Amino acid sequence: MQISGADIRNMEREYRRNMVNTLSGFKSVNLCGTVTKEGSTNLSVISSVVNIGANPPLMGMILRPPLVPRHTLENILETGYFSLNHIQEPFLKQAHQTAARYDSRQSEFEESGLEAFHTDALPAPYVKESLLKIGLVFKERIDIKINGTVFIIGEVIEIMLPDEAVKEDGFIDLEAIGSLTVSGLDSYHETKKVARFTYPKPGQELKEF
Amino acid sequence: MQISGADIRNMEREYRRNMVNTLSGFKSVNLCGTVTKEGSTNLSVISSVVNIGANPPLMGMILRPPLVPRHTLENILETGYFSLNHIQEPFLKQAHQTAARYDSRQSEFEESGLEAFHTDALPAPYVKESLLKIGLVFKERIDIKINGTVFIIGEVIEIMLPDEAVKEDGFIDLEAIGSLTVSGLDSYHETKKVARFTYPKPGQELKEF
Repeated sequence: MQISGADIRNMEREYRRNMVNTLSGFKSVNLCGTVTKEGSTNLSVISSVVNIGANPPLMGMILRPPLVPRHTLENILETGYFSLNHIQEPFLKQAHQTAARYDSRQSEFEESGLEAFHTDALPAPYVKESLLKIGLVFKERIDIKINGTVFIIGEVIEIMLPDEAVKEDGFIDLEAIGSLTVSGLDSYHETKKVARFTYPKPGQELKEF
Repeated sequence: MQISGADIRNMEREYRRNMVNTLSGFKSVNLCGTVTKEGSTNLSVISSVVNIGANPPLMGMILRPPLVPRHTLENILETGYFSLNHIQEPFLKQAHQTAARYDSRQSEFEESGLEAFHTDALPAPYVKESLLKIGLVFKERIDIKINGTVFIIGEVIEIMLPDEAVKEDGFIDLEAIGSLTVSGLDSYHETKKVARFTYPKPGQELKEF
């Protein structure tokens, strides 16, 4: 099947939304925890987190245009901190439920039954159930002109995870933790390792390890 | 295990690189195809593609700081087009091999044994072996101040994929195609669906479909 740009423009809205959101491939899926200055907590599912660099350790995420109140964005700008929490199967349903449109008086923690967890490193709440919790301090906001989305960059200031998930070379075994991946807006998947390869060099056969 | 910002700064370079690159979670993994004005083709593995919006259909990707020649970035800016090609297991080893440091006289197509495929919609080459090929026109370049990486945004102008992969609601069944996901720099994984949920609403039980 060959689909043109015109075909995409002419698609029914929901159809296009479903298709375009699968195009990038399997995506990371995190719960983003934030808090207002007054202490009201917020949780949202984010499938647009990307690595920006390792030193300093930077991660970015795309947030939707702030044409209506966007609690996650507002809270990050207001307090300067957010958490990212990998989603695993035991609390997947609760995690997906946080994407419902609650109003600002409702906390997604209470509504979903997930538990907040705090450390001294940041005011934003972690998700206690998550086996990989990342604390970040806000660093840069980039407004994407072409469609009004906002790219938020944060620096990692804390990581919490099971000892046994960290391999000798620093690699975190996400499959052992059970972190899921998402495709499109609503399809969640577990993973099975195919191969880990050595660093490729011209003219040399790749080795697996 | 609790890791602080100071711990991360003090990590050995390779260790930090491996760890930080796994933090986002499972990532999409694409081969990005580009071409110079003179017609020399280039391929690179990109694990930082994110969805930016559906209407217009926009995708973004992070490219490393252009302190040394970066063929992918140069070619996109020079010709205005690039392709993204999902990676499947039958050509995974060849795909990973394209990340070797070839010089600009070598084409990753020739060196890896992957085959280029062209359509009239764009000058950039597709990867013939890929079951999901996406053609994009360059739209916006954003320089990320904090570490010099470059965020490139393109608009989707062509999609090629097997008919049977497209579901009634536009969702592309990436698992049926066999598109892989990557964790860290070098660990590739296939997926197994856990659940697809209906759109969540406050106070309503989620349904699977």
